[in-house]
Amino acid sequence: MLDIRFEKTTAPKQIPGKEDPLTFGTIFTDHMFIMNYETGKGWHDARVVPYQPIVLQPSAMVFHYGQEMFEGLKAYKTAEGKTLLFRPDKNIERANRTNERICIPTIPEEDFLQAIKAVVKADEAWIPEKEGTSLYIRPFIIATDPFLGVRPSDTYMFIIILSPVGAYYPEGLNPVKIWIEDEYVRAVKGGIGEAKTGGNYVASLKSQVKAHDAGYSQVLWLDGVERKYIEEVGAMNIFFKINGTVVTPMLNGSILPGVTRDSVIALCKEWGIPVEEKRISIDDIFEAAHNGTLEEVWGTGTAAVISPVGHLRWGEHVMQVQDGGIGPVSQKLYDTVTGIQTGKVEDTLGWTVEV
Amino acid sequence: MLDIRFEKTTAPKQIPGKEDPLTFGTIFTDHMFIMNYETGKGWHDARVVPYQPIVLQPSAMVFHYGQEMFEGLKAYKTAEGKTLLFRPDKNIERANRTNERICIPTIPEEDFLQAIKAVVKADEAWIPEKEGTSLYIRPFIIATDPFLGVRPSDTYMFIIILSPVGAYYPEGLNPVKIWIEDEYVRAVKGGIGEAKTGGNYVASLKSQVKAHDAGYSQVLWLDGVERKYIEEVGAMNIFFKINGTVVTPMLNGSILPGVTRDSVIALCKEWGIPVEEKRISIDDIFEAAHNGTLEEVWGTGTAAVISPVGHLRWGEHVMQVQDGGIGPVSQKLYDTVTGIQTGKVEDTLGWTVEV
Repeated sequence: MLDIRFEKTTAPKQIPGKEDPLTFGTIFTDHMFIMNYETGKGWHDARVVPYQPIVLQPSAMVFHYGQEMFEGLKAYKTAEGKTLLFRPDKNIERANRTNERICIPTIPEEDFLQAIKAVVKADEAWIPEKEGTSLYIRPFIIATDPFLGVRPSDTYMFIIILSPVGAYYPEGLNPVKIWIEDEYVRAVKGGIGEAKTGGNYVASLKSQVKAHDAGYSQVLWLDGVERKYIEEVGAMNIFFKINGTVVTPMLNGSILPGVTRDSVIALCKEWGIPVEEKRISIDDIFEAAHNGTLEEVWGTGTAAVISPVGHLRWGEHVMQVQDGGIGPVSQKLYDTVTGIQTGKVEDTLGWTVEV
Repeated sequence: MLDIRFEKTTAPKQIPGKEDPLTFGTIFTDHMFIMNYETGKGWHDARVVPYQPIVLQPSAMVFHYGQEMFEGLKAYKTAEGKTLLFRPDKNIERANRTNERICIPTIPEEDFLQAIKAVVKADEAWIPEKEGTSLYIRPFIIATDPFLGVRPSDTYMFIIILSPVGAYYPEGLNPVKIWIEDEYVRAVKGGIGEAKTGGNYVASLKSQVKAHDAGYSQVLWLDGVERKYIEEVGAMNIFFKINGTVVTPMLNGSILPGVTRDSVIALCKEWGIPVEEKRISIDDIFEAAHNGTLEEVWGTGTAAVISPVGHLRWGEHVMQVQDGGIGPVSQKLYDTVTGIQTGKVEDTLGWTVEV
């Protein structure tokens, strides 16, 4: 149990109005959570303080050797005015798996949850209420030793910042176009692909720019060894419905284990839809599209929840899914997950946590 | 040609004395170079200012998505009091290749060199003169947009800091023990392995800790696809002398193209020693050790220049090289490269640049 000091802001910012448009990750609330780590002393000095800049030595390890991790989850306001978190335990578990992979000291799960709740509570008035909006929660840890040798840092900062965000697709659920990358690789087994750390995202930028320039919104990665098995989309896991069965790449060591991915698998099972986690070759998907058994494709992630995919390109090959529209399972998953998140659908699986 | 503003420190620090022990990357000089980038405005506001902390928003992209790069080179003081840089053009070329891979705007080569010279000139008095010491130069770039979306940043800081460093091996050239990693992978073709960016270093930490705990000083990486071809050592490239021929892994897209590596290849050719850059399987190395044709092993890098390798472990297999001593080619390379760097050996290849 953390002893969290609270220093309230003396200069509160203007909270966006109900009708103000919200984008993603551009405005931040009045407060932030900070906790420090030092070898021998452990995690200490937990505090909620006014949102403020971070001051670091130019030699701080995070600037040089990428020892940094993050998580992303959301808080929602229900019609009754309650504040709900969606499966924060899953994010916290994953955070500590990331920490272990990149030699950052873990944080006790109950302390992590307490920290999230404390800062969300402080800025509860910032949670937007309009359909599709939420308060995005970004916990992250950075290595702060002022030392240029390559080794795990002895000091860290754990920080949580909050950003009110709009609906990912302002005009409602909208199918996206996906670029299948055949030149660059995001991650490989034995590497850091299943950790939520900056190195995986920086590796994706060049493909993302290439895809955007060609009119595509996201990149689908293939495996780094054989370059034929489907891994994930940059910010999402990916699902295919083929001939009545839902398939998604198995967690193989190079894929991020998504919380929404896990939730979608659980819901499909609940609904009696067969789900398989397995190795999926890109050839099999194109063949299913060709012979008419590819029924739906969608991505899952915290930001957009469910993103129907309407179009995929792999070199010269293009496939169209659902005539570019939204499939019934994609729609039902979106309605159910966002319904549970906002308290509109009964949470029979015990996924929400009240702040 | 940059217009570099100079703000001299008003609180100079104590420069270490001639006999003070120096380590690596722990103390920094009085000044640093800074230049900012903004889309539409380009690189601007070049300045040499007092060494000072960096102040960033907690949402700054470098903390979340690893968009950061660095370089490492050294300045040396000759017996005549000249200040020499060693092949800075190679570091600058590589810096811009890294920039292109991770979507950071490039810096004109002549501006980059001018920036290095300006800050080294400002702190010339900090260059240590004792055998084996030098002024380590660390240029780096960080992404500073206060935005949580994943895309290349629109703003950056380019910074150069300086650190007087001691001899890498205080007791002179000393063979190291190398751990061959068979579980984790550093990089794979198509990824960011040939870029000098934090993501590659964070990926290496867990193996490094494992190797250190077992009494080994460095990790040798195998390829991420077949797990049998030799890539590089964490902070060095690797060379083997087998039956009179020097071999080193070819630059295959996942290996860092080292400046010392390039210099060693050039010197061997100069000396008439056959050199081959090729795919090298770990089995071939163990076989050469077994049949007595493995004559020398050494690593190359800016920090230690040449590191003779005396011992390698691959799972249960152990090999001893040169009875754990230093081979004649390793020694000659070390003497020649450090000799050229410090002006003691004639620079017939035009590698040094005077500040």
